Amino acid sequence: MLLRLESTLPRSDRDSILLLCKELGYTTRFLGGRQELLELSGPGAPDHRSRLADLAGVVRVLDVGAARELHERATGSGDTRPDTIVRIGDAVIGGGNVSIIAGPCAVEDEGRLAEIANAVRRAGATALRGGAFKPRSSPYSFQGLGAEGLAILGRVKALTGLGVVTEVLDPRDVEAVGEVADAFQIGARSMTNFALLREVGRTRIPVLLKRGFAATVRELLLAAEYVLSGGNEQVVLCERGVRGFDSVTRNLLDVGAVAHLKGATHLPVIVDPSHAAGRADLVRPLARAGIAAGADGLLIEVHPAPGEVHSDGAQAVGLDAFARIVADVRALCAIDGRTLVTSQLSESPANGGFQ
Amino acid sequence: MLLRLESTLPRSDRDSILLLCKELGYTTRFLGGRQELLELSGPGAPDHRSRLADLAGVVRVLDVGAARELHERATGSGDTRPDTIVRIGDAVIGGGNVSIIAGPCAVEDEGRLAEIANAVRRAGATALRGGAFKPRSSPYSFQGLGAEGLAILGRVKALTGLGVVTEVLDPRDVEAVGEVADAFQIGARSMTNFALLREVGRTRIPVLLKRGFAATVRELLLAAEYVLSGGNEQVVLCERGVRGFDSVTRNLLDVGAVAHLKGATHLPVIVDPSHAAGRADLVRPLARAGIAAGADGLLIEVHPAPGEVHSDGAQAVGLDAFARIVADVRALCAIDGRTLVTSQLSESPANGGFQ
Amino acid sequence: MLLRLESTLPRSDRDSILLLCKELGYTTRFLGGRQELLELSGPGAPDHRSRLADLAGVVRVLDVGAARELHERATGSGDTRPDTIVRIGDAVIGGGNVSIIAGPCAVEDEGRLAEIANAVRRAGATALRGGAFKPRSSPYSFQGLGAEGLAILGRVKALTGLGVVTEVLDPRDVEAVGEVADAFQIGARSMTNFALLREVGRTRIPVLLKRGFAATVRELLLAAEYVLSGGNEQVVLCERGVRGFDSVTRNLLDVGAVAHLKGATHLPVIVDPSHAAGRADLVRPLARAGIAAGADGLLIEVHPAPGEVHSDGAQAVGLDAFARIVADVRALCAIDGRTLVTSQLSESPANGGFQ
Amino acid sequence: MLLRLESTLPRSDRDSILLLCKELGYTTRFLGGRQELLELSGPGAPDHRSRLADLAGVVRVLDVGAARELHERATGSGDTRPDTIVRIGDAVIGGGNVSIIAGPCAVEDEGRLAEIANAVRRAGATALRGGAFKPRSSPYSFQGLGAEGLAILGRVKALTGLGVVTEVLDPRDVEAVGEVADAFQIGARSMTNFALLREVGRTRIPVLLKRGFAATVRELLLAAEYVLSGGNEQVVLCERGVRGFDSVTRNLLDVGAVAHLKGATHLPVIVDPSHAAGRADLVRPLARAGIAAGADGLLIEVHPAPGEVHSDGAQAVGLDAFARIVADVRALCAIDGRTLVTSQLSESPANGGFQ
Repeated sequence: MLLRLESTLPRSDRDSILLLCKELGYTTRFLGGRQELLELSGPGAPDHRSRLADLAGVVRVLDVGAARELHERATGSGDTRPDTIVRIGDAVIGGGNVSIIAGPCAVEDEGRLAEIANAVRRAGATALRGGAFKPRSSPYSFQGLGAEGLAILGRVKALTGLGVVTEVLDPRDVEAVGEVADAFQIGARSMTNFALLREVGRTRIPVLLKRGFAATVRELLLAAEYVLSGGNEQVVLCERGVRGFDSVTRNLLDVGAVAHLKGATHLPVIVDPSHAAGRADLVRPLARAGIAAGADGLLIEVHPAPGEVHSDGAQAVGLDAFARIVADVRALCAIDGRTLVTSQLSESPANGGFQ
Repeated sequence: MLLRLESTLPRSDRDSILLLCKELGYTTRFLGGRQELLELSGPGAPDHRSRLADLAGVVRVLDVGAARELHERATGSGDTRPDTIVRIGDAVIGGGNVSIIAGPCAVEDEGRLAEIANAVRRAGATALRGGAFKPRSSPYSFQGLGAEGLAILGRVKALTGLGVVTEVLDPRDVEAVGEVADAFQIGARSMTNFALLREVGRTRIPVLLKRGFAATVRELLLAAEYVLSGGNEQVVLCERGVRGFDSVTRNLLDVGAVAHLKGATHLPVIVDPSHAAGRADLVRPLARAGIAAGADGLLIEVHPAPGEVHSDGAQAVGLDAFARIVADVRALCAIDGRTLVTSQLSESPANGGFQ
Repeated sequence: MLLRLESTLPRSDRDSILLLCKELGYTTRFLGGRQELLELSGPGAPDHRSRLADLAGVVRVLDVGAARELHERATGSGDTRPDTIVRIGDAVIGGGNVSIIAGPCAVEDEGRLAEIANAVRRAGATALRGGAFKPRSSPYSFQGLGAEGLAILGRVKALTGLGVVTEVLDPRDVEAVGEVADAFQIGARSMTNFALLREVGRTRIPVLLKRGFAATVRELLLAAEYVLSGGNEQVVLCERGVRGFDSVTRNLLDVGAVAHLKGATHLPVIVDPSHAAGRADLVRPLARAGIAAGADGLLIEVHPAPGEVHSDGAQAVGLDAFARIVADVRALCAIDGRTLVTSQLSESPANGGFQ
Repeated sequence: MLLRLESTLPRSDRDSILLLCKELGYTTRFLGGRQELLELSGPGAPDHRSRLADLAGVVRVLDVGAARELHERATGSGDTRPDTIVRIGDAVIGGGNVSIIAGPCAVEDEGRLAEIANAVRRAGATALRGGAFKPRSSPYSFQGLGAEGLAILGRVKALTGLGVVTEVLDPRDVEAVGEVADAFQIGARSMTNFALLREVGRTRIPVLLKRGFAATVRELLLAAEYVLSGGNEQVVLCERGVRGFDSVTRNLLDVGAVAHLKGATHLPVIVDPSHAAGRADLVRPLARAGIAAGADGLLIEVHPAPGEVHSDGAQAVGLDAFARIVADVRALCAIDGRTLVTSQLSESPANGGFQ
């Protein structure tokens, strides 16, 4: 490990830093004559980088060395940690496996949800998304069906065999949501809800963690670290667009972050083109761009009857458009030797070529 | 109220919209021949704007009319609602009253906190800030003293008579924090923690609500609406800088939002120049700019011995710098006939001129 | 055409608007009773949208109708204009043709440039990029070889047969640069240099127009309109990343803008993954994402000996990495039935499958 | 001077760096044993920082030392350069002098312009703004009266005695504009038009340089350096808002940048609240915030008859509002012992107190 200290650090502060390093199990030596570069040798632990960076007098941790955080791909010995593979029902995400999670925005009607679930499964989705608890900017907007929505999700899951991804908003709801969910969704607006992150970190249910809409990649990885450090290793990161200055898309899909994350962490990364675009007609190109940049999966809003969606801002795609996206993803996976994982019950060819 | 509907709306959707309008107590008529502009007449209620805007087929609510939300300044009859005045201990915020809340970032040592509290009170602060629960990007960073920090805050409050503003992060902590706090702080990273907003909305303790670092002004006002709609009318909005692209300041203080808010809402608005600047040397000019733009108060990080703060990024100002800021604020208030409210125990002249 | 007027417009202003409409050849009528929606019927011309939108009292042009701007895909009659196809030497861009333009950042040494040119041609590039005039933030940084750089470009073009894309910065240089260039590059920092845009619009040499790093898509299209309205129809738009808040990439590649542009304009759109990433290791995934989102080509910085590039910020890829990008692009084109155009002298299979 | 070199730099590159240092007149030595920190001793020159930072193998210039750039406030010897004071007609900007430049957006009618000029002079402005050449996003929008507009400006200047600030867009127009202008305005969209910056740097006419709407402070200072290095020392920087994500203001006025600039450079800094706000009702609070943050002046759009401005987006203030802004600025100056400079012909009390 290598720390840069302030150049004008009083002796007492320098001594405090050296003392903590010793307590953490390191031997230390200054490089050069200016007492600015401090080299630490020792076994390291995931919490050391943050603890040392927080110290008064430490300008920066230049080299993390062995003190690898839990999300990091590179190990202290220079090796690379293998990809984490997360399973959500039949969906397999990471390690060369690509899966598509699809469904409506909110759970409203059981019959309608079952219809969508069966349709997206046949088209190639391996997990069902749908919100029972909805985060809404306005207190007066529909907040989801809550417990009744969870019950519907449970029955549709039993009916269709699809794993369920659903959002949890409140740490007090983690237990109830966990009885139905095959993966907790942590929405973009909850990425810095640290109490909630700790609570889902105590479970052993996969967590789909969305990037906040102005969060840096480092902040996203540290949010994941809250879950990982609780002992829950099943974390999927999700890029869903950051807030930009142009209204032609609702958000700005950061494919560079996806590509960077594939090198920086062993955790799988998926893309939500629906929230990024905010427009049904751009979901397909953004889905393609995400997979081409290296994403391990997609989270897509699907509506069975796009003709019934009237709002200009509607971002849900219909079943035909969804099928075209699945075909594109299969073809893109083939370029890299990756596999689009589909349910055994899917009508699509499981590993077939692109038509 | 005036709604714009989609131009190609099927009859069944149009009928659904008309039905909800009727249920909400409105009589309706279309303006012009195109069935796009729908005029609603009726008493209105705070939730109608969001509920109508959410309807499929409604493009936009063009004119809110009588359906004023709780934060809005203008009433349906064209009158203006008087300013809300919020009291936090001796601090009075809003309605021409300006107050300064000051203190350290985190509560750490009781003696040190009492020393700072007395010093800032003497210099002109009327409330004490200090975090017992700290939101931290990294799970390995110091998260605050928690319950022990609350106990310290309680004892320092008894000792100094200063009202206490402290952050609450978890809805399960609202009761415990509320036993000490004269105002709950909702941090920028919790602005979209709707479960937490609802919980503090059930209390009758003032809420200092910080703008998320990429939240629009409308989103901030709707977050306030979560608290107001719970029956808690004591909300202070706080602008603390948005995320920008230039690293010379940590955040970009949005004085235009402050000025806009003063016209849009009757709620008081304060500015946090410390988090906006991220640099001690820029706190004073940003504090001045905030007050000059119309802010009703300041939230400032103060450290008793700036010489002990070594980090380049340190944003806490020393007591001398704080005293200069107080003098500036007093002079700026005089320009507008506003009053800088100070504690009776303050050594500063209560309403004196600028020296 | 459909205009929204201000609701409280005095009669004299309304009359002025009606008069201009008549002068432009329209007959007008108000829709509904409120004199807010003004419908115009007539042949239309490309300049009408801007001229009417600029009028005092006009809130918005709601529907452009027949007054199509030159870049627009949709015609007034509801038809779609066919794709513009731009040729730069052997490169063919647009209408299902994909081409790759590659080369060094700046022209420095003739032998080295010829070597790169031959290498990228063999690998699959069909045009050579290289700057003789370099826009630099600092007046003290190397500003390019200028006229000598143009001469080198001319000789390497003669030697290799590759078309040349090179930047022009000053309207007074357009003639000199045009003697060598097969396409003018207008850099991101010149997108709002309207005098320069007009000057290249007077030539009949293709223009590669880069999006400014905080320009909206509408502003990019209007910059193109400056060139098109001068009579030069050979414009290629280039997305190269917008300025974001996270430093893991230098810029934020806006693939949503690429996808939107493919629907909004008949002009071809390419992507510059090198400037977007600012890091050699992310050029390949961003190149793939751009093509997958629908881009008609790539502009890539290539360096023959990546081992000689030491800076952490270096964004040039080596020849091996470039060859992998070309193979990826060929495979991606095959998914859509698009063609990667390569030089006859290329050693790559012209329309072969992906290996 | 202190450079950080790459840790894995080959000997040949290190030798090249050392050679250039020697040619620039420095003696060098490595600090510590890792050959990463290179200390340079010598006289220094303004171009050295950029030239050394550009070298392959140089990670960063850690300490500029004596190689001060022309805009920098601190000198190599640790002293501070005195404020540059720029005069534009009667306006005096910098060194504790505050001036207000006011006028219409574009020059259209001579009588109307003379009327505005007289009115703003009486109210306290000391220079007149008005565009003869207008940068417009659309080629079809009104581009200004050009030469005829310059002639009008010249006659109004003769009539009123006010100095004239007017925009130049094209390097070929610098001579003609310079015959009328007391200061060239370089607009936000021209901040990276380096050919234009060099051209105005060859004159000895003051330059009012606006920050690009997504330019960093460093980029703004380097744009100023283009003018300064041409020998023109009369540069005024202007903050006019950066592009943000919220539409309640057109741009986001960056008062933190103003405060930072006052410490970083000896050049005067003014604020344009009109373009930042994009709304007449917010011009006054933003003007106040700018002056309170330390700005040396204001650039304000004034319209004589605000009742005639109908557009929602109108940002021009009327004469009454302008007079209130002038009174505010005078009072704010008094707080700091600064002087609001007014014309001898002004009807306002030249150095009077605030009423």
